[in-house]
Amino acid sequence: MKVAKFGGTSLANAEQLRKVCRLIQADSKRRIIVVSAPGKRYKDDMKVTDMLIAYGQHREEGRNGEELLGLIVDRYANIARDLGLDQSQIVRITDAIEQIRILEPDENLRWRDALKAVGEDTSARLFAELLNNNGVQAAYVNPMDAGLLVEGTCGDARILPGTMDILAKLSNREERLVIPGFFGYTPEGRIVTFSRGGSDITGAIIAAAVGAEVYENFTDVDSVLSVNPSIIPDAAPIRELTYREMRELSYAGFTVYHEEALLPAFRAGIPVWIRNTNNPAAEGTRIVAERPSSDGVVAGIASAGGFCSIYVTKYLMNREIGFGRRLLQILEENRIPYEHTPTGIDNMSIIVRESVLGEGTLERVIQRIKQELDVDDIRVVHRLALIMVVGEGMLSSVGAAARAAQSLAEAGINIQMINQGCSEVSLMFGIREEDEKRAVAHLYEAFFREAKVAISR
Amino acid sequence: MKVAKFGGTSLANAEQLRKVCRLIQADSKRRIIVVSAPGKRYKDDMKVTDMLIAYGQHREEGRNGEELLGLIVDRYANIARDLGLDQSQIVRITDAIEQIRILEPDENLRWRDALKAVGEDTSARLFAELLNNNGVQAAYVNPMDAGLLVEGTCGDARILPGTMDILAKLSNREERLVIPGFFGYTPEGRIVTFSRGGSDITGAIIAAAVGAEVYENFTDVDSVLSVNPSIIPDAAPIRELTYREMRELSYAGFTVYHEEALLPAFRAGIPVWIRNTNNPAAEGTRIVAERPSSDGVVAGIASAGGFCSIYVTKYLMNREIGFGRRLLQILEENRIPYEHTPTGIDNMSIIVRESVLGEGTLERVIQRIKQELDVDDIRVVHRLALIMVVGEGMLSSVGAAARAAQSLAEAGINIQMINQGCSEVSLMFGIREEDEKRAVAHLYEAFFREAKVAISR
Repeated sequence: MKVAKFGGTSLANAEQLRKVCRLIQADSKRRIIVVSAPGKRYKDDMKVTDMLIAYGQHREEGRNGEELLGLIVDRYANIARDLGLDQSQIVRITDAIEQIRILEPDENLRWRDALKAVGEDTSARLFAELLNNNGVQAAYVNPMDAGLLVEGTCGDARILPGTMDILAKLSNREERLVIPGFFGYTPEGRIVTFSRGGSDITGAIIAAAVGAEVYENFTDVDSVLSVNPSIIPDAAPIRELTYREMRELSYAGFTVYHEEALLPAFRAGIPVWIRNTNNPAAEGTRIVAERPSSDGVVAGIASAGGFCSIYVTKYLMNREIGFGRRLLQILEENRIPYEHTPTGIDNMSIIVRESVLGEGTLERVIQRIKQELDVDDIRVVHRLALIMVVGEGMLSSVGAAARAAQSLAEAGINIQMINQGCSEVSLMFGIREEDEKRAVAHLYEAFFREAKVAISR
Repeated sequence: MKVAKFGGTSLANAEQLRKVCRLIQADSKRRIIVVSAPGKRYKDDMKVTDMLIAYGQHREEGRNGEELLGLIVDRYANIARDLGLDQSQIVRITDAIEQIRILEPDENLRWRDALKAVGEDTSARLFAELLNNNGVQAAYVNPMDAGLLVEGTCGDARILPGTMDILAKLSNREERLVIPGFFGYTPEGRIVTFSRGGSDITGAIIAAAVGAEVYENFTDVDSVLSVNPSIIPDAAPIRELTYREMRELSYAGFTVYHEEALLPAFRAGIPVWIRNTNNPAAEGTRIVAERPSSDGVVAGIASAGGFCSIYVTKYLMNREIGFGRRLLQILEENRIPYEHTPTGIDNMSIIVRESVLGEGTLERVIQRIKQELDVDDIRVVHRLALIMVVGEGMLSSVGAAARAAQSLAEAGINIQMINQGCSEVSLMFGIREEDEKRAVAHLYEAFFREAKVAISR
């Protein structure tokens, strides 16, 4: 059996929903369907989830929000009408939406979870009706009924132990099941959402639980690209990549698929197939456990700016047991996650995202490092970009690092940092932000346009 | 004024001591002389310090050790006689040695410090007599009288605050001062030694304290070489290198100069001049704060085997604040110093010297990491070598990393790790031990034999 998840653009209007319906009809193995809330129909359109958030703000500010609620109801009612659903079906759907009037803002703003969940929930109700109208026996299944039990705070749901075993029973149902993505329930019956875009996570959890042969993730792109197309307009598509490669790429800007949604698939060994609802004939991108090494050393090149390096030097640092741990502890106590820690014999650089540094945080951290670690020097380098050259083949390839460094040298780009550990599938370069696009372009040239034979033995 | 330190081979016999005497006579600025214990005269000879250690073992085992003591006394007495010292001078020297009979083994084995110090102390007494015999007004100065106050345990002396100010007064003395290296005194009068080879440290501390214009470190080699001569027989000498470069090189096998002895010179900005007692006309190697960048991007290439990598992977590791700190804490609690920690997005490698891992330590650490950090995978790669390509020019050079990686690729050597942080003067490669010599040879070829113009802009 297959689990198929459809993103917001696949559910944006009646025409899109008809495509999804045809996809379900075309393959009897697509037994479990996970849906998002309707997304944008055109560039400046509003996503349903954003409309729900706006409604919530109105209510929290003491306004009634009836106007916004009307727009949300209309959005679904129009889709339902366009799809030819009958009046009783439309009423069932809109009645469910209007239940949000009953929700009351609470101090902890937990009500927002229940509010935001309405987008996906209504999509699932609507799509189940559509399938039945088209002769496909289908049932809407609420995540509570499915047994998707979670804990955690708003936008950070984590599944509870035992959940997978309960969800596994979904595979016994004979009709197609349409399940809203994005949220689960606590054992007490409170809705908790995953992080934004979390329908990918619901789909991955269910695919893992039922042991699906594949988790199809339908989006609006033909495939994951090997490099940012705003830098390389004719970027090559990626046909297949491993979980590890996808994870490394997602780190620096590859946002097609939610990074948290890889874990359940990875743990259960379920292949993830990124596909296009609007072009189901396209090959898409498969994310798998292993891929043949013949397909090139490098799978993709990702990059991101906005990093800084905190460089600390202290004579005989490498003799001082506990130095690195104490340095990291100061960061931890200031709630600063770090990315990399390249080290020399007497120095250590800590690479952090500038965005995680609140007002005055850096100054506080530097002050503590100076006071507590008696360092010789501490320096901060701002405006760094990290470039990740990612590929399973990097592990066994002689010369991949050379080729990468050479292409940066030819572009006249000074490498600030290099980082590659044992058994890693990526090579990281730190460079100045202003060199980022040029660096990516040159690396792409080196790994994707020139003959690949020269770099593997 | 200059501080001159002479190593063991410079004091091994009368002929060597005459050379040292001539060096002092040749330059009136050489006002403070720090001496080691007599070293080897020929390949299978025994160093005086090793004889003293053997004597100590005899005594600890309840034997009287008179035979060994006789050999030690004879060693100095023969040198003194060969140098033409008169009987009263010889008696003064040998009487001082025989004081070690009074020392009693104690439970904490602290007596070993006092025992080992006798080698340097006697050298200093003997050389002061020689200088006076040759018309150079000189005084033996005991480290206690000089004010070299330390704390710490056997072989790990650390100077006490205020010591530098007391030592600074040595510059007021008019005669030449001959001071034994290797040890200081606690305020209670107990002798504590520096780590083995620690006469370099004494010299550096005194040079820093008196603000010497240069700290001359006389050895038995013409200069520091840019690469291990057992790999490259005609290795180029290094004329000048910075403290940072020397430090990085000393990390992986460059043992000409004691690494702890760089710190006092570095802090005080005193240039260190490595010279050859047997060939004072040779240029030697100067260790300085800054050097002209025109002298090549790379100063030297060092390598060492005997490392292993503990590779840990955990999905979404980079989101988990405190992961790295907790991992390092487990190492710290097992007293394992680590060398480098290259990281990927979901993984971290910890590079440690195999030699620091006691029986069962690795298993214990792995067990704790598994239990406490809930990692997905943990793997150990043994028999790694680290190669350091060191040079101030690495910082500003476009293409140095490319050239280095390219030369390894041409040799068919797979790079296991790469590490270079911001502001670092070295580039580290991790490779398999069996590739070490070939890697060094190829890197040397790339940086020292080919035209240098291509790699710097």
